[in-house]
Amino acid sequence: MATPPVGALLFDVFGTVVDWRGSVIRAGESLSERTGRSVDWPAFADRWRLEGYLAPIGRIVRGAEPWRDVDALLDAQFDLQAAEAGLLDVASAELAPLRRIWHHLDPWPDAVGGIRRLRTAYVVAPLSNGGFAMLTTMAKRADLGWDCIISTELFRAYKPDPAAYRGGAALVGLPPEQVMLVAAHPGDLRAAQRAGLRAAYVPRPLEWGPSAPAPEDPDPSFDVVAEDFDALGAVLGC
Amino acid sequence: MATPPVGALLFDVFGTVVDWRGSVIRAGESLSERTGRSVDWPAFADRWRLEGYLAPIGRIVRGAEPWRDVDALLDAQFDLQAAEAGLLDVASAELAPLRRIWHHLDPWPDAVGGIRRLRTAYVVAPLSNGGFAMLTTMAKRADLGWDCIISTELFRAYKPDPAAYRGGAALVGLPPEQVMLVAAHPGDLRAAQRAGLRAAYVPRPLEWGPSAPAPEDPDPSFDVVAEDFDALGAVLGC
Repeated sequence: MATPPVGALLFDVFGTVVDWRGSVIRAGESLSERTGRSVDWPAFADRWRLEGYLAPIGRIVRGAEPWRDVDALLDAQFDLQAAEAGLLDVASAELAPLRRIWHHLDPWPDAVGGIRRLRTAYVVAPLSNGGFAMLTTMAKRADLGWDCIISTELFRAYKPDPAAYRGGAALVGLPPEQVMLVAAHPGDLRAAQRAGLRAAYVPRPLEWGPSAPAPEDPDPSFDVVAEDFDALGAVLGC
Repeated sequence: MATPPVGALLFDVFGTVVDWRGSVIRAGESLSERTGRSVDWPAFADRWRLEGYLAPIGRIVRGAEPWRDVDALLDAQFDLQAAEAGLLDVASAELAPLRRIWHHLDPWPDAVGGIRRLRTAYVVAPLSNGGFAMLTTMAKRADLGWDCIISTELFRAYKPDPAAYRGGAALVGLPPEQVMLVAAHPGDLRAAQRAGLRAAYVPRPLEWGPSAPAPEDPDPSFDVVAEDFDALGAVLGC
């Protein structure tokens, strides 16, 4: 039986489209320059991501905690880490650019051009656990060129809950098998496949910094593997 | 007390951004050319809009009918009118471009450039009773340049239900008073104002054709009145 054609590419965002770690570090270094405070920003970034985002989302998906929006999760962790870093006496206007950095993350160098290439042949949209306003602000600032914004906030179900993938496909008006998730994380791709979507793996070896372990090998079941979004465009014929 | 600044412009779409009537008529005339069938397309268009869209949405907002998506409403009415017009023996592939025309409507001549101008200073998005996939397809084809797509489908509440306006403001992350609805329909604008939003009236005298009655006068309470989106950009300082 012929495989039905893919009509839409949905993208994981944090790590896949944008360099969250480099963006947090740069915003932290800017704060240090303005205020003279010294902080281990790479460690600050990694912990914020792990304990303020990945861990609470995991608990919500397992049903151990009620759904809360991602700004609330990240803000609570920021306040904790800012207190531990001795930043509580810094004026909130000085802290704001770092506190809100998840709305203003910088894309990987290939992302803007690659998405532009892919959008000539496919509907392109994020499918991210980031909030709807967060993803909208980020896309506008970085000129990401999405056709629409899809946040799992719309389903009150974070990835890897299958409702998030199925909800994304439904919003673009396609059956799951005509929608492909593009992600740097095999776990995200496997969950998308279990929900009926196709899978494009774009490893991002620098996501966790230059000394992080190498990305996982692709599963044999992944439909496409590409080293960046331009290569993905070439593989997908656009 | 100073008025808080507007951060986002949400646009009514059918009649305000796109010329639904002209688009339906052109798709109908194309069908006539291909099949030799003669139909009063202006009357077909007006009735489709009135009985397949405005009337059932009114019943849903009043609570007289359960929510159904807008494709279901429009398709049911199309099938009825196609039968009455003697088109039932036309191949469905021939009928498809007309049946799906609401996903492919043409914008008014000023719309694309005007939205592009307005997006330099504001988040711009539709806030339409059209479906999410319908609005996404339409925007991609016409290059409307939205920052995100907001369909009242996301709230299962059609305008003028206040939940639709409040939901739109919440998705862009702003309080209602920092969001302005742009619409060609005073009733839509009044409902937006009752939900706390600001109102920009852009009358579209040709929406119902060249011999339709003139648009309503603006309410004195409307924040802005402009003759098209370029003029709106000038009034809003961008």
